[in-house]
Amino acid sequence: MSGVRRFSPDAAGDFAWADVERLRYKDEGSAPFRDITRQVLFAQPDQDCELRYFEIAPGGYSTLERHRHTHAVLILRGRGTVRLGASEQPVTEHDLVTIDPLTWHQFHAAPDCALGFLCLVSRTRDRPQLPTAEEAAQLARR
Amino acid sequence: MSGVRRFSPDAAGDFAWADVERLRYKDEGSAPFRDITRQVLFAQPDQDCELRYFEIAPGGYSTLERHRHTHAVLILRGRGTVRLGASEQPVTEHDLVTIDPLTWHQFHAAPDCALGFLCLVSRTRDRPQLPTAEEAAQLARR
Repeated sequence: MSGVRRFSPDAAGDFAWADVERLRYKDEGSAPFRDITRQVLFAQPDQDCELRYFEIAPGGYSTLERHRHTHAVLILRGRGTVRLGASEQPVTEHDLVTIDPLTWHQFHAAPDCALGFLCLVSRTRDRPQLPTAEEAAQLARR
Repeated sequence: MSGVRRFSPDAAGDFAWADVERLRYKDEGSAPFRDITRQVLFAQPDQDCELRYFEIAPGGYSTLERHRHTHAVLILRGRGTVRLGASEQPVTEHDLVTIDPLTWHQFHAAPDCALGFLCLVSRTRDRPQLPTAEEAAQLARR
């Protein structure tokens, strides 16, 4: 329904909005990750995309994974790094990150700073793939 | 292509990004508006949505219009107001605005502050409708 949902960060400064639930990033044990939450900001019936907000606490990280669908990311808060295939790059507030199909990717928050980002995805999308032990070792060597 | 496009505001503090062109909001004379620019941040071939960034200079405004497609908006910068049908509400950084089909809507920047916002839309969408003189007068009376 048309309306405004107010931004209302919590006492710790973590981003939150009226009428938006803070969710687990993934089910525990389903894949490696640390200190990350997920909020679905928009999932409109007439749009084939969803806009989600992920927040990683200082020192935390998302799962190293890849999938056929793309990610369109805008950093909304803080600092960290993003792995894109063979490269790792620093990211900071308002940077844009494009993640192409089947590109290994992972976000890390800085040790002393949270990292929050918007992520646009298609509503219908394939499940993420995790690296084999060999692939993970290869990525770590680069 | 996978990669990071850096946020690089211009000397005046207006939001800009590497490899993102600042466009006219609309063609001059096509509809009433003032002091507003448009930047397409993401338009991926495998996604049916686009993420655009609009920036309204202090005192400027977008066109008062409506259409069948929805808007999903996140305020990225500054302060202003949004008209949603009969109501006008203040908006500020990180607020979320949902605009349902056929809802008259218009954004105004504050007199002393720019207003910048992300707007998510479907790639295929109908053209905006402008109010008749009578409809505009009725909206103004509310």
